[in-house]
Amino acid sequence: MKIVKTLEELRTARTHLNAPVGLVPTMGFLHAGHLSLVQCARQDCASVVVSIYVNPTQFGPNEDFAAYPRDVDRDLDLLRDAGVNLVWVPTEEVMYPHGYQTFVTVEEITQVLEGAMRPTHFRGVTTIVAKLFNAVQPDKAFFGQKDAQQVAVLQQMVRDLNFNLEMVVCPIVREKDGLALSSRNIYLDVDQRKAALVLSRSLRKARELFAAGERDAIKIHQAMDAVFADEPLARSQYISLVDPKTLLDIEKIETEALVSMAVYMGKTRLIDNTILGKPDLTLDQP
Amino acid sequence: MKIVKTLEELRTARTHLNAPVGLVPTMGFLHAGHLSLVQCARQDCASVVVSIYVNPTQFGPNEDFAAYPRDVDRDLDLLRDAGVNLVWVPTEEVMYPHGYQTFVTVEEITQVLEGAMRPTHFRGVTTIVAKLFNAVQPDKAFFGQKDAQQVAVLQQMVRDLNFNLEMVVCPIVREKDGLALSSRNIYLDVDQRKAALVLSRSLRKARELFAAGERDAIKIHQAMDAVFADEPLARSQYISLVDPKTLLDIEKIETEALVSMAVYMGKTRLIDNTILGKPDLTLDQP
Repeated sequence: MKIVKTLEELRTARTHLNAPVGLVPTMGFLHAGHLSLVQCARQDCASVVVSIYVNPTQFGPNEDFAAYPRDVDRDLDLLRDAGVNLVWVPTEEVMYPHGYQTFVTVEEITQVLEGAMRPTHFRGVTTIVAKLFNAVQPDKAFFGQKDAQQVAVLQQMVRDLNFNLEMVVCPIVREKDGLALSSRNIYLDVDQRKAALVLSRSLRKARELFAAGERDAIKIHQAMDAVFADEPLARSQYISLVDPKTLLDIEKIETEALVSMAVYMGKTRLIDNTILGKPDLTLDQP
Repeated sequence: MKIVKTLEELRTARTHLNAPVGLVPTMGFLHAGHLSLVQCARQDCASVVVSIYVNPTQFGPNEDFAAYPRDVDRDLDLLRDAGVNLVWVPTEEVMYPHGYQTFVTVEEITQVLEGAMRPTHFRGVTTIVAKLFNAVQPDKAFFGQKDAQQVAVLQQMVRDLNFNLEMVVCPIVREKDGLALSSRNIYLDVDQRKAALVLSRSLRKARELFAAGERDAIKIHQAMDAVFADEPLARSQYISLVDPKTLLDIEKIETEALVSMAVYMGKTRLIDNTILGKPDLTLDQP
């Protein structure tokens, strides 16, 4: 496994990779969710590139950029074991050198859900991912369904800016008890960790109602609120049922609905989601 | 010469081109300036791609998008004669399909000069050029020095977004009497056409003073104003001496200065420029 830092090193190493090349962008502190993306990429591609970079421009001024967990040595061991070909670990000087001033913005669909709560977040995401795409020039790029809006925003960007690659979306990976994997889970204390099951429990409730024929988004929302009412340690920031592509609110579910949420457990902000109308093995088989 | 419309046709045709591939983006209505870019590209590259697209997002609401001159059949004849391999003539539906919402913005250096006069112009330019770069994936891209700020803005974008290509800047092409070639020159009536020589005349004045040792930007600016004072048909919108890379105002010229201007001849807006401290054959040999 080759490890590079600068853009020039990356470009040189890139020319030696067999096609098709798959890219898995990460912020490091890897867990089984990231490794499932790597597995996805290995199955689909002759070569796999992973980037590790905690991107400052996607954190708000009061968010956890400085505290975001980092352990690059451990990450590299995991990626070596996972059969990755090339890892790019750029520094901030490589990514945002003095005088940096270019940004990629997706407009409408970044204004809702996570974007409404984190106004500069997606500008940071689309900018860094555009940079990664241009630097690595992958044939396929792998992202997790865990960040449902990020997936929708990046798919829009790829379409709009004519990026010549295929976006592959991989399923959410959960702990056995249902908690979606996240690098931020390490912030949770024992009680919060238990209480955090309220996210997956409420999503399972939504799927049960949908499976039983319920199509009224308000009724499903109310049932999820009731699940949260029983869990005093959790404070939901939003729970939302939207069209999976446009991210616009749905009242009556016709075919599919993205149910997503952001929840505070103390100071830790967790997100989770499911798409009603699509199979979701991790939630349908408890 | 292959001519394509859709993105899919372009991608298929692109795979058959020998490397290195050169791209010359144009808005059509080609003149000798464009053809000099094609010649540049042919000397440097095994294959040459030209795009023809009058990009609506780089025109302001009161600018000449609808009236902008178009003659695609003539353009294709010229490009065929010039030895171009592939021409992309996308429609608006291909470039900005329903639901389009992604934009590339370069911040600081788009706020001055042309950007100060045309606030949404460069967002349109950087967005369409990013799309062209991603669609064509050229090894080199060719632009004219005529649009000096466009060149600086695109070089910044290429650096910032890690585009894997080389920007090549080709000299301004002028009529024998000094007028810089522009598709908008056809708007000029006979008197305006004569009066339009005030642009190149004032630039030549600046070069004479600089060659004689003058380094005070204000003194050079005043001498150019005096040239304009003798030409009542011309109304200068701005005349500016700036650092060629940062585009920040210069008082004392150390090594180089970009002298640029926008001038109204009636309703027609013309631009021209030269870089003091660099040779400029078309202005130094009248």
